[in-house]
Amino acid sequence: MEILVIGGGAAGMSAASWARRKAPEARITVLERTNIISHAPCGVPYYIGGLFKDYWLLQAYDVKFFRERRNIEVLTNAEAEELDVRSRVVVARVGGQRAKLEFDRLIVATGARPRRLLSADARVLYVHHPADAEAARRAAEAAREVTVVGGGVLGVEVAEQLRNMGKAVHLVHRGPYLMSRDLDEELGSALTQMARGAGIDVRLGVTVSEVNDSRVRLSDGSYLNSDLVIAAVGVEPNVDLVRGQLRLGPHGAIAVNDRMEATYDYVFAAGDAMEHRNLVTGQPYWSPLAPIANKSGLVAGVNAAGGDKRFPGVLGDIVTRFEGVAFGRVGLNEREAREAGIRYVTSIITTRSRARYYPGGGDVTVKLLAEESSGIIIGGQVAGPEEVIGRLGVIAAAIMRRMTADDLFFVEMGYHPSSGRAWDPVVLAARQLMRV
Amino acid sequence: MEILVIGGGAAGMSAASWARRKAPEARITVLERTNIISHAPCGVPYYIGGLFKDYWLLQAYDVKFFRERRNIEVLTNAEAEELDVRSRVVVARVGGQRAKLEFDRLIVATGARPRRLLSADARVLYVHHPADAEAARRAAEAAREVTVVGGGVLGVEVAEQLRNMGKAVHLVHRGPYLMSRDLDEELGSALTQMARGAGIDVRLGVTVSEVNDSRVRLSDGSYLNSDLVIAAVGVEPNVDLVRGQLRLGPHGAIAVNDRMEATYDYVFAAGDAMEHRNLVTGQPYWSPLAPIANKSGLVAGVNAAGGDKRFPGVLGDIVTRFEGVAFGRVGLNEREAREAGIRYVTSIITTRSRARYYPGGGDVTVKLLAEESSGIIIGGQVAGPEEVIGRLGVIAAAIMRRMTADDLFFVEMGYHPSSGRAWDPVVLAARQLMRV
Repeated sequence: MEILVIGGGAAGMSAASWARRKAPEARITVLERTNIISHAPCGVPYYIGGLFKDYWLLQAYDVKFFRERRNIEVLTNAEAEELDVRSRVVVARVGGQRAKLEFDRLIVATGARPRRLLSADARVLYVHHPADAEAARRAAEAAREVTVVGGGVLGVEVAEQLRNMGKAVHLVHRGPYLMSRDLDEELGSALTQMARGAGIDVRLGVTVSEVNDSRVRLSDGSYLNSDLVIAAVGVEPNVDLVRGQLRLGPHGAIAVNDRMEATYDYVFAAGDAMEHRNLVTGQPYWSPLAPIANKSGLVAGVNAAGGDKRFPGVLGDIVTRFEGVAFGRVGLNEREAREAGIRYVTSIITTRSRARYYPGGGDVTVKLLAEESSGIIIGGQVAGPEEVIGRLGVIAAAIMRRMTADDLFFVEMGYHPSSGRAWDPVVLAARQLMRV
Repeated sequence: MEILVIGGGAAGMSAASWARRKAPEARITVLERTNIISHAPCGVPYYIGGLFKDYWLLQAYDVKFFRERRNIEVLTNAEAEELDVRSRVVVARVGGQRAKLEFDRLIVATGARPRRLLSADARVLYVHHPADAEAARRAAEAAREVTVVGGGVLGVEVAEQLRNMGKAVHLVHRGPYLMSRDLDEELGSALTQMARGAGIDVRLGVTVSEVNDSRVRLSDGSYLNSDLVIAAVGVEPNVDLVRGQLRLGPHGAIAVNDRMEATYDYVFAAGDAMEHRNLVTGQPYWSPLAPIANKSGLVAGVNAAGGDKRFPGVLGDIVTRFEGVAFGRVGLNEREAREAGIRYVTSIITTRSRARYYPGGGDVTVKLLAEESSGIIIGGQVAGPEEVIGRLGVIAAAIMRRMTADDLFFVEMGYHPSSGRAWDPVVLAARQLMRV
C-alpha cells in the first residue's frame, strides 16, 4: 500500500507517523514544500524576538529521524503541483525535477497561509511559517518603528516581542479590542490595556489603507511612521491543490467526516486545511490550531492505514500570552453564541491566582457561558499568570460532556496555595451560574 | 428556624453562608473552638517559614464580616461540649460560661485533628491548625536541627520551609518514599530525590520510637539529633462530640448521604469531619481537603436551609509543592486500585513543560490509570513546575464522566509555547493507553 501525505507540518507528520504504526508494511511518502518539517509556527514570534537563537528548534523532528526511525520517506522542497484524485496521481516539483507519484491513500495536510494585506505588497512581511522567520527576524532587528497589522494571537505576540526588542510598535486592529475574534469584551479589554500599558501604540477600529516606504495610512486617514510592516491579519486554508476535486466547507477548508475522510474513502485531510464539526453547535468550524493538527493527523493516519478512529469535533481552545498573563478561550464566546442562535447566560469571576498569603502570582479571571434553558456550559475564557491551559482544559471537558454549571461546580479541582485557590476560580464561576 | 453550625473552619463558614443565602430569615449561629474562623490550615507551613508575616492572613473573612455582611452570629473560643441530637440541644462553653443552645437544624463541621505521635509527648509540636502556627514559628526559629515526622503533604511542606530557614532537617517517613499514601513510586521517588537534593535528610521505612530533649530514636535503632520535633503523621476526624449519636463510616468520620445528611434529616455534616462516597469505587472515602470542605459546606448549608443540592462524591484531588515543582494526584493510585480489586493499566509520560524553544519551565510528568477491561480513566498523577492543578482538574472531569483514554485523548487542551505543549502531556498519556 502506498500512502502519500501532502504537507510536512504538524498534521502531516503526525499522520505519517500513525499510518506507519498502524501499517508497518506500507510505503509512506511525505511531500513538503519548504525545507522544514514537523514545524512549530507558534514559535515564530519568539524566534523573531530572540528568545532562542537556533532556528532549527522550530522543527520538532528532522527528516533523518522520520527516515531512519520511522521508515517514512520525506521529500523537502517538494511541492505538489497537480493532483488527480480519481486517478490517484500527484505531480510534484522535487528539487527542480517534476515527479509523478501514485498513491492508494492520500492525506492532504497542506495547512493554512496568511491572508494578504492590500493584495501582495512586497514591503509587507508575514510571519506565519517558520520559513518566514529568519527574514522577519533580520528585518525586525534593522527596524526602528514597526507597524503590526492584526490584533489576534499572532499580532499580539509579535507586537510583544518587538516591544521587548526596544522597537516603537504600532498595533493596528480592526476590532474594538485586541483578540476580539476570540475573547469577549471583558478579557479583550484587559489585554488591550496591558498592551497599551507596556507602551504599544494600539489603534482600534481601523484598517490599513496604504503602505509606503516610511509610513502607513490608516482607514481613518491618519498616518503611522514605520520602516517595517508586519501583517498578521489571519490565515486561510491552503486548498488550491484540491479545489474542484475535494468538497470544501463553508469556511473554505476541506470538508471531512469524523474519520477525516474528504469526499472519497481513500482521501483524508488533517490540520489547518480541513474544517470539522464544532462540538457545541454541530456546525462546520475552522480551527487552525496545533493540537487539532496533531490529533486530526493521528486520526487521518490511522484510518488511511486501515484503522477506524473517530475525531469527535473541535472546540477552538486557543491561548496567547502577553508578558506575564495568558489569555485563552474554549467553546463559544458571546458573539459565536449569538450567531448560533443560542440564548445564554454568563458569569465572570476575578480572584488572586494564589492563596492570599502566598507571595507571587496575580489576578486570574474566569468567564463562563451556559445555555440559558439547560445550564449546559458552552464556552469559557480564562486569563491569568498561571494555570490557564489546564483550566481551559477542564472547561473543554465540561463542554464535551455537556456538563451543566452544577456539574462543573462539582468537578474536583486540586488546590495548593502556591498556584491555586481552595475555591478554584473555575468552580466559583460555575457557582455563579448554579441554581441554589 | 434556628440553624446551628459547630466548627468555624472552611466547611462551617461555607455552610453558614449558603444557609443564609437560601434562608434569609433563619437564625444562624456558628460555634468555633479557637479564636480564628474561616481559616486556611494549608497556609501554616508557609507562615512558619516566614513567606508572610501577618498571622491573620490565615483567616479569609473575620467575625465582623460574617456578623455585619451576612447576619451570621459567630462565637469564637466557644467549644461545644455536649450534644443531644434527639433533643436538639448543644451545651457549649463560651468564654468561660456554659451556654445551652437549641437548634432546628444542625451542621457538624468539627474538622480533623492531628494524629498524635507516641501518645501525647509535650515536646512534640503539631502544625495542623492555624492556632498552632505562632508557637510553631517561634519554636522553629529558635531551633537549629529539626526532625519532621511524616512525609505526607504537610511534612514535605514543613520540611521545605524549615530548610529554607536554614535549619538542619530530618524528615522521617514510614513509607518507601515521600507522599507514599498519595503518589505511586515514580512520582514519589522523584519527590524524595528532590528533597534529598535540597539537603533534607530523608529517612524512609522507619518510625519514631522515642523523643528526648536533644534527640529522637528511630525504629531501626538509630538516633537523630534534634532540638525540635514536629509531627505530621496524618489527621483523624474530630468526632468526639457526635460519637454514639451519629453514624460513623469505616474511616471513623461521620457518614453522610449525597445531601450531606448525617443519620437524621435535620443533621448535616461537612468538611473533614465527614466521609463521602469515592466516585470511582462507590465506597466510603475520607478526603480531608479544603476544596471538598468548601463544597460540602455549601451543600450542607443549602440543604439545612431547605434546599436540595447533591454532592456527587469525592476523588481526592491533592497537590503539594516542593520548591519549584508541584506534585498531585486525583482518583485512585495503584495501591488504591489494587485494594479496590480493579484490574488496571497505566501510562506515564515526561516532557518539557514548555515548547522546546521557549525558555524556562522544566519537566512535567503525567501518569494515568485506566480500568483494563474498559479503558475508563480511574486515576492520574501530575508533577511539574506549572499547569499541574488544571491538568489534575481535566483528569478529575474525565473520571467523573467515566471517560475512556480515547475520550480523554480528544479533550481539546489549549496550547501556548510559554506554558504548554502542542501535544499536551495529559493527551500524550491518554494516547499511550489508547487502542489504535
